[in-house]
Amino acid sequence: MNARLKKLQQILSKEKLDALLVRTFEGDNHNVLYLSGFSGTTAVLLVTRKKAYIITDARYFARAKEEAPDFKLVKVQRGNKVSDHINEAMSLAGLSKSSKVGFEAGTISVHVGKVWDKDIKAKLVPTVHIIERMRQFKDEDEIAQLRKACRITSKVYKEVVPLIKPGMTENELGFEIDMRLRKHGAINNSFPSIIASGPNSAVPHHATGDRKLKAGEPVIMDFGGLFPGGYCSDITRTAFVPGKKPHPKMVEIYKIVLEANKAALKELSVGMMWRDYDKVARDYIADLGYGEYFIHGLGHSLGLLVHDPYNYEKDPFEVGTVITDEPGIYIEGFGGVRIEDDVVVTATGAEVLTKAAPYWQF
Amino acid sequence: MNARLKKLQQILSKEKLDALLVRTFEGDNHNVLYLSGFSGTTAVLLVTRKKAYIITDARYFARAKEEAPDFKLVKVQRGNKVSDHINEAMSLAGLSKSSKVGFEAGTISVHVGKVWDKDIKAKLVPTVHIIERMRQFKDEDEIAQLRKACRITSKVYKEVVPLIKPGMTENELGFEIDMRLRKHGAINNSFPSIIASGPNSAVPHHATGDRKLKAGEPVIMDFGGLFPGGYCSDITRTAFVPGKKPHPKMVEIYKIVLEANKAALKELSVGMMWRDYDKVARDYIADLGYGEYFIHGLGHSLGLLVHDPYNYEKDPFEVGTVITDEPGIYIEGFGGVRIEDDVVVTATGAEVLTKAAPYWQF
Repeated sequence: MNARLKKLQQILSKEKLDALLVRTFEGDNHNVLYLSGFSGTTAVLLVTRKKAYIITDARYFARAKEEAPDFKLVKVQRGNKVSDHINEAMSLAGLSKSSKVGFEAGTISVHVGKVWDKDIKAKLVPTVHIIERMRQFKDEDEIAQLRKACRITSKVYKEVVPLIKPGMTENELGFEIDMRLRKHGAINNSFPSIIASGPNSAVPHHATGDRKLKAGEPVIMDFGGLFPGGYCSDITRTAFVPGKKPHPKMVEIYKIVLEANKAALKELSVGMMWRDYDKVARDYIADLGYGEYFIHGLGHSLGLLVHDPYNYEKDPFEVGTVITDEPGIYIEGFGGVRIEDDVVVTATGAEVLTKAAPYWQF
Repeated sequence: MNARLKKLQQILSKEKLDALLVRTFEGDNHNVLYLSGFSGTTAVLLVTRKKAYIITDARYFARAKEEAPDFKLVKVQRGNKVSDHINEAMSLAGLSKSSKVGFEAGTISVHVGKVWDKDIKAKLVPTVHIIERMRQFKDEDEIAQLRKACRITSKVYKEVVPLIKPGMTENELGFEIDMRLRKHGAINNSFPSIIASGPNSAVPHHATGDRKLKAGEPVIMDFGGLFPGGYCSDITRTAFVPGKKPHPKMVEIYKIVLEANKAALKELSVGMMWRDYDKVARDYIADLGYGEYFIHGLGHSLGLLVHDPYNYEKDPFEVGTVITDEPGIYIEGFGGVRIEDDVVVTATGAEVLTKAAPYWQF
């Protein structure tokens, strides 16, 4: 029995639930993957206090058996409703109409919720983010996977820097990055690479296009990989196109953003609240007069998703919290700088996973 | 005003709704993209009978203005709740507490539904798949995009066939395919490429791995691209590794699957129900004794998603229905064959979009 499943079963007992239903939803299979190891895109898990079932269709029978050995396979037959097979699993587990069965309200649509209310023979109870809150704190195995993902991603950054030159397009630079991610072991990008050059660098989520890089301009590269096992990396570096000295104000902004990134990292510790972490970088930038140009949060949780779940308002950092540290300054029509690292909170502070030094030298 | 928005406004009037809320959900932005053109991952649309608003945050202000010109931008301020800004948009639109505002119950989670019920100042009405049912039938512009996507994807197949040789791994072959998709214009894969060789070819959704191809074996390649504009392609071909004659039974299976694919294509027409389309290929295979080995549906709708929405049980095919035609035979421990084309239903029959002939010659 895997440790995550065991932990969930303790939570069920604490929450006075007889079981929990966890489902893939429109391509979001992360809770199912996290609990069971099953990497397919269509499945429902039924976890009781003692047993665990995976309900899936013929496309995935073999994969479910192989990847989710702690889960008993319940086979969806062509033409049947999935809810019939949920009832089948409940009956195999010895549950009855009076059993209290939770369902994850954050990943079940209002529509499916209504179908289940009608079809499923149990007392359904909406629960909120039980699995997401387990996913907030990464275990040793997860951190090892994230460390490897970030090591490869940093290597890709180092490989592409020497390729940057005037006349290259954003798309061409993005292609070089994406190919190298795959070549070095990523299954895919963790999100579409953002390559933002010149004035485009003032747009935090710029859509990479065919603009040609010009000498002396900033070029923001924000990218990451999705690796076997399912974990994501996410790095941002701002480079300057060779051939001309960058604008002095860009150099000033670059240095401020880098120092803000370092300042937040230095303060990061167990027990800290998200808002205080954010404030370190925000205050640093505001004190130097650029407060209004830092127009997004300092970062986000990272894991199976590039924006992994985290209850930012309520849950302080713990050992195993993995987040990004990505301050930015964006001046419309002129340009911007963002520098992003992935860091894991440790008992003594923080470990930076994205070791893509050297930073830019002027 | 774009034609899709206009059509939705007619539906609102027919359904006696004053407005509809449409939202991105966990990376699923397809309904928002379809209606507005906005390609970012976080936004809520409010469409009234006369007006349209897009509610998004600072990361996306510039993109929303550029991509969704028919929608008035409502800016989410840092720290505010999105539902406050939905109320702001409703107030700008002249809606009141007694207005009937639909929300798409298939893409709103039970959890968010509860928050909205509490926060939003209107009479909320769950609606089911209004936008999805619009998306079932593709317009000229969408068909042109799908045609181009499939042309490029077919070209990629033709390029990789000569590279297949004994000793190459599934992952290596997948890499060649994925690189070429990107090189020829795809933003990404539309799903992780399935490369299934030898006995793995008997697993319809095999997870591509490091198995080495052997002479004479079948290798199923099931892949597609996601192209600028947002449309997907999806093709499957079964090839045989050179160096040895394929097993006679594999050749027999290949021919049956190919004929089943052609038979379904030939019958495809406006007004046909999904189940009858499926039956053509299923009966063909069953009559030749392999019925129990065709373990999945004949295909699926294709569009912004590789499995695009379609009400298969109720809605007959119309001009603009785009579906896949992918029969398969899978014999555990031995191997399998699948052949998949993307086809659009026309007034006179069907147009095949994936022109990756020649098929395998023995």
